[in-house]
Amino acid sequence: MRIRFHQSLDDLKEKLLVMAGMAEQAIQRAIEAYRTRDTSICDLVMHGELAINKLEREIDQMALDLLAMEQPMAIDLRFILAVIKINADLERVGDQAVNIAERVCDLNAFAAAEMPIDIPHMASVASAMVRKALQAFIEGDAELAESVLAMDDQVDKMNEAAYYSLSLLIKDQPALTAQALNALVISRNLERVADHATNIAEDVIFWVRGADVRHHQSQSQNAAS
Amino acid sequence: MRIRFHQSLDDLKEKLLVMAGMAEQAIQRAIEAYRTRDTSICDLVMHGELAINKLEREIDQMALDLLAMEQPMAIDLRFILAVIKINADLERVGDQAVNIAERVCDLNAFAAAEMPIDIPHMASVASAMVRKALQAFIEGDAELAESVLAMDDQVDKMNEAAYYSLSLLIKDQPALTAQALNALVISRNLERVADHATNIAEDVIFWVRGADVRHHQSQSQNAAS
Repeated sequence: MRIRFHQSLDDLKEKLLVMAGMAEQAIQRAIEAYRTRDTSICDLVMHGELAINKLEREIDQMALDLLAMEQPMAIDLRFILAVIKINADLERVGDQAVNIAERVCDLNAFAAAEMPIDIPHMASVASAMVRKALQAFIEGDAELAESVLAMDDQVDKMNEAAYYSLSLLIKDQPALTAQALNALVISRNLERVADHATNIAEDVIFWVRGADVRHHQSQSQNAAS
Repeated sequence: MRIRFHQSLDDLKEKLLVMAGMAEQAIQRAIEAYRTRDTSICDLVMHGELAINKLEREIDQMALDLLAMEQPMAIDLRFILAVIKINADLERVGDQAVNIAERVCDLNAFAAAEMPIDIPHMASVASAMVRKALQAFIEGDAELAESVLAMDDQVDKMNEAAYYSLSLLIKDQPALTAQALNALVISRNLERVADHATNIAEDVIFWVRGADVRHHQSQSQNAAS
């Protein structure tokens, strides 16, 4: 019974990794669409959402069945809860990819214009956070998960910088308003991807250490202010 | 044992309602700050975040203890999982209130200007969605929860309309760029509050009916397109 249970936990982990791969691919594709202005890639992202949503439901059901099957030990219980939470965050990463793809479609109605922000770089940091958080999950490595929390500040700063440089651009060249607003929204979408990666990293730490590290940043920020 | 267990479930529900009240109050205060441009209310929202974060942890721990205590029946299991998910969404509603308060602080550095969008109205719809979703949760009313899903489209449309009217304003009056961008970000924050209310409503339906209604909208949208 216990062996079968642990086999099922492994299957659950495996499925979550597939989910993570799909979410990450969706972000990569959306940014590829942004770089190349290729509408067909946008369509790919939007259609891919259905598969991500379907897998989210399957993982949740599997987790629920495992909780119902027998009384899991404390560490397994925390693992299953971490999976349920990580699953929800990954699905929302996929939503962000769809939002970006929608913005790219909108952008394509306007002339191409150089923007003063590096969206692909920001996306690569946000994607790396998701990947690292999942790697921390596979390896049960709380320290690796902590390194993800530090990266979140980096993305927040990029997003703030994007906000200010794009507002300056709009003031200087109002004709580029549409392009700049789309870039601004995409920057915020990527900041949300980084937030989801942060949530995942926190769940990994909670699972591994049994300690709750959520909100440690806002608390230390508040203590410092 | 069962009686104590059900008493604990009631306590958990009670705590989640307190959490919901705090999240809703945070949004109301942030919008009050926007209306009155009162920085002291912004501070109140930012400090309130600590209490919300603390309560989130308490609720999660309580839910975890209940899952560990004894093997809950299927309906109770789904209830506890719904609480864990709703809890996370409420905490993120609180985060949105903080984001709005930050934007209001930023806005106060610029001259007041009439914006072509009704932020307080949008906020009242988004708040009503959170309230209704929680009411559906208290009453175990899946139909009421479904009415929340319909309201989400309304907020999405307001957000889209805000995006277009604010981009027109910026093109016409570039001097108002800062004010318009802040209003645009606040509008997106409120759209996210509505998304969280939608997630909560879906969790309520899942708990009550044991059926998973998530993504029904995107699927029907895709089928229609």
